[in-house]
Amino acid sequence: MNKIITIGREFGSGGREFGRKLAALLNFPYYDREIITEISKRTSLSEKYVQNIAENKPIIPFPIHTGRTFFAVMPDYGQSVQAEQHNIIREAASKSDCVIVGRGADYILRELHPFRIFVYSDTESKIKRCRENQSNDYEHSEMSEKELAKRIEQINRARSEYYGFYTGQKWGDKANYDLCVNTSFITPDKLAEAVRLLM
Amino acid sequence: MNKIITIGREFGSGGREFGRKLAALLNFPYYDREIITEISKRTSLSEKYVQNIAENKPIIPFPIHTGRTFFAVMPDYGQSVQAEQHNIIREAASKSDCVIVGRGADYILRELHPFRIFVYSDTESKIKRCRENQSNDYEHSEMSEKELAKRIEQINRARSEYYGFYTGQKWGDKANYDLCVNTSFITPDKLAEAVRLLM
Repeated sequence: MNKIITIGREFGSGGREFGRKLAALLNFPYYDREIITEISKRTSLSEKYVQNIAENKPIIPFPIHTGRTFFAVMPDYGQSVQAEQHNIIREAASKSDCVIVGRGADYILRELHPFRIFVYSDTESKIKRCRENQSNDYEHSEMSEKELAKRIEQINRARSEYYGFYTGQKWGDKANYDLCVNTSFITPDKLAEAVRLLM
Repeated sequence: MNKIITIGREFGSGGREFGRKLAALLNFPYYDREIITEISKRTSLSEKYVQNIAENKPIIPFPIHTGRTFFAVMPDYGQSVQAEQHNIIREAASKSDCVIVGRGADYILRELHPFRIFVYSDTESKIKRCRENQSNDYEHSEMSEKELAKRIEQINRARSEYYGFYTGQKWGDKANYDLCVNTSFITPDKLAEAVRLLM
């Protein structure tokens, strides 16, 4: 059976960097944004659009009652993006050993008993990591400390809601993971070297 | 500064075994029941009695109001056992690198920034470990599966209450640890080898 490692991660905790290092050390394929690119190819939707749908729980408006009922329906492409995401994650896991970051992969692949890692850190360390990492998607450089802390919290709340919506489990609840690591004082390199020994 | 590793652990999760292996690999002194023995020596109380006081939160009866008030007072030896426990833990940490299991050492030594590990596992794995480990204090061998599960839960509830009472923190809440490991599918040996690399 393939060795599958899933990594849930708080935004700002260095989970992606850790995942990349671990995959490189183990010589396993690494799946993260690659999944978004692949969905975009398969659905002909833009990557930005796919990312927004694939990483957020659907917004379901209240039905409006004005004499007759309007039902809130999730757009078809929302469903198909989620379906494609599931397919790609399953395909990756069936193809070879791999490291998959985010996207509730721990839950999607639960029958294959992946090694489930969750990476978190304290707010101070998240802010520091965001300031240092200029290559990420979010424009943090001009934000105040307070604004950045709020932004980080928002992103993590969205991740938590997404995970809860699609899995029915609590994001980051240690009962659902094999290893939870606080990266406030551990570098991704050191962590990858250690976790490698658990495989 | 000395390297201090503290290990909180659910009963039945193999935390003690892991702690011993880790201490041996690192060549660090290991403190667990040794602390009880030392308190017993210093206070001239029996080890069994010391253990009971040192590992459980005090039972504070409600004050009884019958015209005049009786105050609930924690017995002096309860306080002195706790005080000795603190002293011994602080002494150990100031003497050399070390591994300390249980006793809220992560909180007692918080100003020294220990590496804080929490070890947990699922109920099934705890039961299996208890059945295999005949050398522990509790008489499990004649218990049914259900009785044993209940007993394990009771012990862990007592640990949780003890930790909460003396630290004001939630036992096993990952925010208070650097590493939380689910030992349901990881052996203490393998874990010790990996954690060694984080030191």
